[in-house]
Amino acid sequence: MSLKSAKKSYSNFYSRHVGPDRAQVQEMLAELDCDSIDGFISKVIPDAIKASSPLVLDSEALDEAELIAEMRKLADQNEVWRSYIGQGYFATSMPAVIQRNILENPGWYTQYTPYQPEISQGRLEALLNFQTIISDLTGLPIANASLLDEGTAAAEAMYLAYNFIGRKKPNAKKFFVDQNVYPQTLAVIKTRAKGIGIDVVVADYQVQEIDEDFFGIYLQYPAANGAVVSYADFIAKAKEQNVLSIIGTDLLALCLLTSPAELGADIAVGSAQRFGVPFGFGGPHAAFFACRTDFQRLIPGRLVGVSKDRLENTALRLALQTREQHIRRDKATSNICTAQVLLAVLASMYAVYHGPKGLKAIAERVHACAVTLSNLLKADGVKVLCENFFDTLSLEVESSAQEQIKVRAAERKINLSYTGKETLQFSVDETIVEQDLIDLLYVLTGSEPASVSLDTESQCLSDLKRTVEYLQQKVFNSYHTETEFVRYLKRLEAKDLSLMHSMIPLGSCTMKLNATTEMLPVTWNEFSNLHPYAPKDQTKGYQKLIEQLEGALKSITGFDIVSLQPNAGSQGEFAGMLAIKAYLESIGQADRNICLIPESAHGTNPATAVIAGYKVVPVASDDNGNINLTDLEKKITEYQNNLAALMVTYPSTHGVFEEEIKTITKMIHNAGGQVYLDGANLNAMVGLVSPEGLGADVMHINLHKTFCIPHGGGGPGVGPIAARSHLKDFMPADPLAADHTGFGPVSAANYGSASILPISLAYIQMMGAQGLTEASKIAILNANYIAARLADYYPVLYRGQNGMLAHECIIDCRGFKEQGVDVADIAKRLIDYGFHAPTMSWPVPGTMMIEPTESESKKELDRFINAMIDIYKEIQQIKSGEYSKEDNPLKGAPHTAQEIASDDWKHSYSREVAAYPNEDVRIYKFWPAVGRIDNAYGDRNLMCSCGS
Amino acid sequence: MSLKSAKKSYSNFYSRHVGPDRAQVQEMLAELDCDSIDGFISKVIPDAIKASSPLVLDSEALDEAELIAEMRKLADQNEVWRSYIGQGYFATSMPAVIQRNILENPGWYTQYTPYQPEISQGRLEALLNFQTIISDLTGLPIANASLLDEGTAAAEAMYLAYNFIGRKKPNAKKFFVDQNVYPQTLAVIKTRAKGIGIDVVVADYQVQEIDEDFFGIYLQYPAANGAVVSYADFIAKAKEQNVLSIIGTDLLALCLLTSPAELGADIAVGSAQRFGVPFGFGGPHAAFFACRTDFQRLIPGRLVGVSKDRLENTALRLALQTREQHIRRDKATSNICTAQVLLAVLASMYAVYHGPKGLKAIAERVHACAVTLSNLLKADGVKVLCENFFDTLSLEVESSAQEQIKVRAAERKINLSYTGKETLQFSVDETIVEQDLIDLLYVLTGSEPASVSLDTESQCLSDLKRTVEYLQQKVFNSYHTETEFVRYLKRLEAKDLSLMHSMIPLGSCTMKLNATTEMLPVTWNEFSNLHPYAPKDQTKGYQKLIEQLEGALKSITGFDIVSLQPNAGSQGEFAGMLAIKAYLESIGQADRNICLIPESAHGTNPATAVIAGYKVVPVASDDNGNINLTDLEKKITEYQNNLAALMVTYPSTHGVFEEEIKTITKMIHNAGGQVYLDGANLNAMVGLVSPEGLGADVMHINLHKTFCIPHGGGGPGVGPIAARSHLKDFMPADPLAADHTGFGPVSAANYGSASILPISLAYIQMMGAQGLTEASKIAILNANYIAARLADYYPVLYRGQNGMLAHECIIDCRGFKEQGVDVADIAKRLIDYGFHAPTMSWPVPGTMMIEPTESESKKELDRFINAMIDIYKEIQQIKSGEYSKEDNPLKGAPHTAQEIASDDWKHSYSREVAAYPNEDVRIYKFWPAVGRIDNAYGDRNLMCSCGS
Repeated sequence: MSLKSAKKSYSNFYSRHVGPDRAQVQEMLAELDCDSIDGFISKVIPDAIKASSPLVLDSEALDEAELIAEMRKLADQNEVWRSYIGQGYFATSMPAVIQRNILENPGWYTQYTPYQPEISQGRLEALLNFQTIISDLTGLPIANASLLDEGTAAAEAMYLAYNFIGRKKPNAKKFFVDQNVYPQTLAVIKTRAKGIGIDVVVADYQVQEIDEDFFGIYLQYPAANGAVVSYADFIAKAKEQNVLSIIGTDLLALCLLTSPAELGADIAVGSAQRFGVPFGFGGPHAAFFACRTDFQRLIPGRLVGVSKDRLENTALRLALQTREQHIRRDKATSNICTAQVLLAVLASMYAVYHGPKGLKAIAERVHACAVTLSNLLKADGVKVLCENFFDTLSLEVESSAQEQIKVRAAERKINLSYTGKETLQFSVDETIVEQDLIDLLYVLTGSEPASVSLDTESQCLSDLKRTVEYLQQKVFNSYHTETEFVRYLKRLEAKDLSLMHSMIPLGSCTMKLNATTEMLPVTWNEFSNLHPYAPKDQTKGYQKLIEQLEGALKSITGFDIVSLQPNAGSQGEFAGMLAIKAYLESIGQADRNICLIPESAHGTNPATAVIAGYKVVPVASDDNGNINLTDLEKKITEYQNNLAALMVTYPSTHGVFEEEIKTITKMIHNAGGQVYLDGANLNAMVGLVSPEGLGADVMHINLHKTFCIPHGGGGPGVGPIAARSHLKDFMPADPLAADHTGFGPVSAANYGSASILPISLAYIQMMGAQGLTEASKIAILNANYIAARLADYYPVLYRGQNGMLAHECIIDCRGFKEQGVDVADIAKRLIDYGFHAPTMSWPVPGTMMIEPTESESKKELDRFINAMIDIYKEIQQIKSGEYSKEDNPLKGAPHTAQEIASDDWKHSYSREVAAYPNEDVRIYKFWPAVGRIDNAYGDRNLMCSCGS
Repeated sequence: MSLKSAKKSYSNFYSRHVGPDRAQVQEMLAELDCDSIDGFISKVIPDAIKASSPLVLDSEALDEAELIAEMRKLADQNEVWRSYIGQGYFATSMPAVIQRNILENPGWYTQYTPYQPEISQGRLEALLNFQTIISDLTGLPIANASLLDEGTAAAEAMYLAYNFIGRKKPNAKKFFVDQNVYPQTLAVIKTRAKGIGIDVVVADYQVQEIDEDFFGIYLQYPAANGAVVSYADFIAKAKEQNVLSIIGTDLLALCLLTSPAELGADIAVGSAQRFGVPFGFGGPHAAFFACRTDFQRLIPGRLVGVSKDRLENTALRLALQTREQHIRRDKATSNICTAQVLLAVLASMYAVYHGPKGLKAIAERVHACAVTLSNLLKADGVKVLCENFFDTLSLEVESSAQEQIKVRAAERKINLSYTGKETLQFSVDETIVEQDLIDLLYVLTGSEPASVSLDTESQCLSDLKRTVEYLQQKVFNSYHTETEFVRYLKRLEAKDLSLMHSMIPLGSCTMKLNATTEMLPVTWNEFSNLHPYAPKDQTKGYQKLIEQLEGALKSITGFDIVSLQPNAGSQGEFAGMLAIKAYLESIGQADRNICLIPESAHGTNPATAVIAGYKVVPVASDDNGNINLTDLEKKITEYQNNLAALMVTYPSTHGVFEEEIKTITKMIHNAGGQVYLDGANLNAMVGLVSPEGLGADVMHINLHKTFCIPHGGGGPGVGPIAARSHLKDFMPADPLAADHTGFGPVSAANYGSASILPISLAYIQMMGAQGLTEASKIAILNANYIAARLADYYPVLYRGQNGMLAHECIIDCRGFKEQGVDVADIAKRLIDYGFHAPTMSWPVPGTMMIEPTESESKKELDRFINAMIDIYKEIQQIKSGEYSKEDNPLKGAPHTAQEIASDDWKHSYSREVAAYPNEDVRIYKFWPAVGRIDNAYGDRNLMCSCGS
């Protein structure tokens, strides 16, 4: 026997990742009248759908130690030079206390999106802090809880302006972008503009005339070359033409500079990376978006707002949820779902820890470094191009001198930004120490001083020195010692239910184990501290990692090509739909613009199709939740000349394996259309069903679902796309690429959220082909087991062949209307039992969609099932009149400890029933921080930043 | 201005470490009628005591980034080879989930010793698991909650046997140690034996006759050379002579081998390092100690036992606390306080995660590797010395061949144990992969196979194959997936109050900030994965680190030499007292054996003096808690010919700076004695008072108090000693040293708990000389502020000059007898307010000793003070008759959530008063896991392992 087999025989990663052990699997199979797992699976998955051959991956499953060794090898092939390249990415010092207690803490990173606000007050507070920071620094009253990256934030701003101004000036299609913006921002703006037919005009704002054909302008402040100039006059002129102004800006610079609002901007966007988040080879980072109050219902992404709970306590929650795509569908103004919650939390905590004085001191120090270098370089005869700057110096350097600079830079392992044959620029940052200044001077001039004295007096901020104070609220002025700060972090963490507490059975969200070993490499220096524009020979480890991950995803999906660029599922959808569009254009079928979308699709699908420039035509579902073939045929016939694509989710959002999928894809192809597959539910298919085999042309994958990137409380995510080879030339382009055949990039960084890709590769490599396949089976088994156990209490809405489900089940909660109980009551009551509710009222109102994943053991499933049954019994007690419709444990839920302890207990049921409804809860009780939240109150009285 | 100064001007480590900011300091000074901090300090510290010059350290204060860079440089000078040296230290795979969620998690490592069991149920459960593991594997019914290391555990076992047998055979002074034991164990046994006059006989157990002059025997199983033999006959013969048998053993081997109990052992000791804890260059690791039931009141260290709470719930707590040194003093049977709680928790969790099947599989795999190598080596003509072994092979190799082996070993970066000119040995471990086997074969034979197939059939365990099952309890068979396991960890963590929640004002324990940056290097590969016997040229980084730390401690104490070997304060005391003894012997004054100890001294002092072979004579205190000079003079005169030493704590355990300390040390010196200074309270002196300047000759320092090593729930600790140059030759010796002038080593590893030394060096280097000095001032200020604010409610017992205190204050709680309130009631009520109680009833019964440290802000001090005042008011409500003596919030405290929610509320006061006595608690409520624990019940019904 080989040592490796001996090792595997007992302990392997699979057995750590998958919840049920062999005995539990047998017990569950018995409940489903099956003998073997494979027998069970053949009952579930239609033969026609099954993968024709087993999944094959490049290497055998690695154990945790082997994986770490392999990752170490990759990491060692990355070279970490000092990068002063700037361009929107700056080196930072993440305080160790934040790194260890948030970024490396599963209590934070395994949280879900705060849809159940009563058990999410911790991260909601952190996000409210984030919004307050953005709002204070930009001067704009409303800021959202982060976007995916600066480039997409800029594109979203453009789209908002387009929609808003379009009401008054429907023919204004021009968008001005100053030439002095980051190249990646411009590239992403162009991609988005193309989709919807906006005309992007790039020029020098000093010479451009803005007429009424424009709806918006985009300026960068400080500009990409570092220049600090006032755009106030230009903006004022634009405003006269009813044109909205968007400023892309930098939070650290704003600590010293007049705010965008004071310059007249209507919207400000940018990246919060600079607040303590590492390069990460381009991401993930939290972008921000701030705007005028009258845009509050148009603002993309999520907005945290202040409201109150049933007991009149202040309570936070996501505001204006009616804006979400699942409600607005093709009327939605953005397809964004995932935010960068974890990153926004990190950035917000950086500001909390430093406080306004600390931030200002950091900004002043960075600025003083730039001023000092500028003065010394000028003294040495170097031509510094801008008079006024914050942290970035542009130099004019003869090309021969530039070559010498490159040699010296290599010698000192320093990266600069070589912007032209005779120009270069560099940005200083908070990590700089005196030796760095000396080295920079050596690199740039060839001679190095023994020491550098900082010029803290002179300033180069034009007349834009900031006068308005910021972050005077208590939270930013309270936690500046590590002891106080870490207690604040822990206090917030304790308010939030995460995977550390109990299962989070979110339908279509696949809240599975995020194993520690998968997470370890993320914070290694070699993965976290590479600038996205570092030369290729410094990033070989990343390139190999990306190649390996792409390879594995190709094997898993059966497709020929993969792009890891989209940094969220929504961006993957967008990229996929753009690929189809570009392909159709390339074969001369640009007039195909109809996108068929089943009614059961994710709400993002129609939103995406619209922003990609399609016209959406819905297709009906049949009683089983499957696509109605008759209606499909009808729509195909109706739109046959213009049919571009079908967007289909598989397994369907109703949680079943549709038998007719191959027929459907064939019908579309026969009609000249392309098939886009939404891979949100891929967790049910890995190793069992080949998406390529189903007939799709392109699909997106959620690495933050199937492939174990933690949800981080609502981001980061990664949404790669996989496609057939005919779409090869239309994949997302490198944002820095001069030429490309497709639409361009969909994310600011070429590899999107690069620094979290090790997580998914680690998962795949440790599971191996067989492990992944077995995990899919268990995911399906767990879902069917729950359905079987709950069916007597809550009708299971949709079923596939043999009455079986895929990886999730939808239970109907509409039968309790007579008792006055709706699905929200059940969801909130689950909190008292220690559980996060499943997806509520989606895809069908009044239902719950439960996805247990393979990581939950039968023991945990039973705990959940028992809670659901106990709640059913409580509903029966309402029916029997034991509880009134108005006052019962469901209506009162969730119950806080303070209410339980209150001398003034107002309910007809007992405190014990409220707080400890069963024995499981006695073993471990998770208390909600607030009682049930009044959403309407908060929306009526919108408040999206810290009060004081 | 230099960049460094610019950086420091706002943000520096000092301002992160120290709680009160400038404004808060001024507010507190005003409360104390002082204008400036220096003016305040001169009121506190007698002029005669003050350091004559400011503290000077080698380098300026580093910021956190600089510190990490410096540590990185040190780490890079350590070379991590594969070490198969064995000898009690084996490479392990710590599961990542354990590393990140316990070892790197402040929620676990900042916990205090579980003296308040109601808020310590999490670690108590982990320790009960640990005891169960030890008990099951050794077969002995009682196991403690860990000891410092295997060597001291062996010495403690010897001492227990000596005391126990001494009752029946007072003249039995001989202790047999088999020659085939680890050298470090033998060395530590010899040190301990010398102190109390035990005659250690080292020989081959196969030839030694055990007669009635012996009281104990010590055997190693498997033996140091790897041999697995049955000692049953030898032990049986010893038993006939009324001799106790002690077996040093290995937990992983016991997973396959007959237990020590079955061989007849009365005591088993060993190290739990092998259960997932890294080498750490020798420590810290948890040693274990298991024994017969009738030794339960003699067992050294702490014992976790099962009891019940006020509400009849099962509840854990430290059992048999009457054995502690502060009660037994010179009658104590051990001076051990600190355990290795954090390490025991880690080892226990390794067993919980793997379960009995997993552990057995690991042991079988390790054994199979050894068997395979043995077979292949034999086939190659190598002479393997033992027929039966578990994991260690001893080889006979000609010296020339050995030289070649060394060359090949260097080539492959492999360390073996070269035990003689013609012998060597090596131990395999769980980290071994096939390539390691191939490399080992290459190193040993010069040729390497392409692959190695594992021999899993043949076994070399003699007739000692284990038949008794182990770890069948539920806890070891429930948490084998990462999801289930991490939830178990979090559930336990949530039961324990730590520094993450609120201040832990433990007198004399200095629970200050353990900054994240200090902790980071500990788990770096280069610090954690070095074998303590790795060749010196591989450990240069450690050597420099140790040199730097020793240097800093010399500067701080004023002494000439420092030894970092003692791995707890108690061991430091022991080492210091042995140094004095050896010195006196060296100058021909061996008859000096009297040790004067003030009544106010730590209980460990007299216990230590006794085990070091002194006779203890107490010295009275005066009314202010100072040493009574008249009594001191009397005792000196009475014992002048035999006076060896005075052990004195400074500042005194009464929390004051005694003015007469210099007079006292002079009196002792004039009488020919030496002065030992207990440095537990050094936190009040750093930079302000020089211990050397007080006239001490030797002192111990607690790195886990003053120098920020976290308490880890009751260990690890580090207790270095510092001394004048005349004691230079009598410092603890290297356990492997063939010759030495003093008593020998006090710890198994030369540098004790080496891997946590970076923490203290990091702290010192980041604070700098000035920062350390300022921190001492703030520590004193905080204590005086608390005393001033509380004095109107609770009398402050002792005061120094100007009515001032040092770094802690003792408040008198004896005035509430009439209300039926004792100090424990106040302590338990503090839990309801969210606080860990201060030290109770020590050094004076009925009092509380409060040490706030410099890390707590005025805001936190005020929260604590307000809670204490609120409790005072509650006592007044008893006085006024509002509450009865029997039923009031103090007597009912602490109140659990389940009691609060109970429908059957039995108290006369309200639930709200019980749970939310003030507004602070509403902001963050920490719920105790159980109600007040019945200690007596548990001691009457002693149960120290998991039931089922």
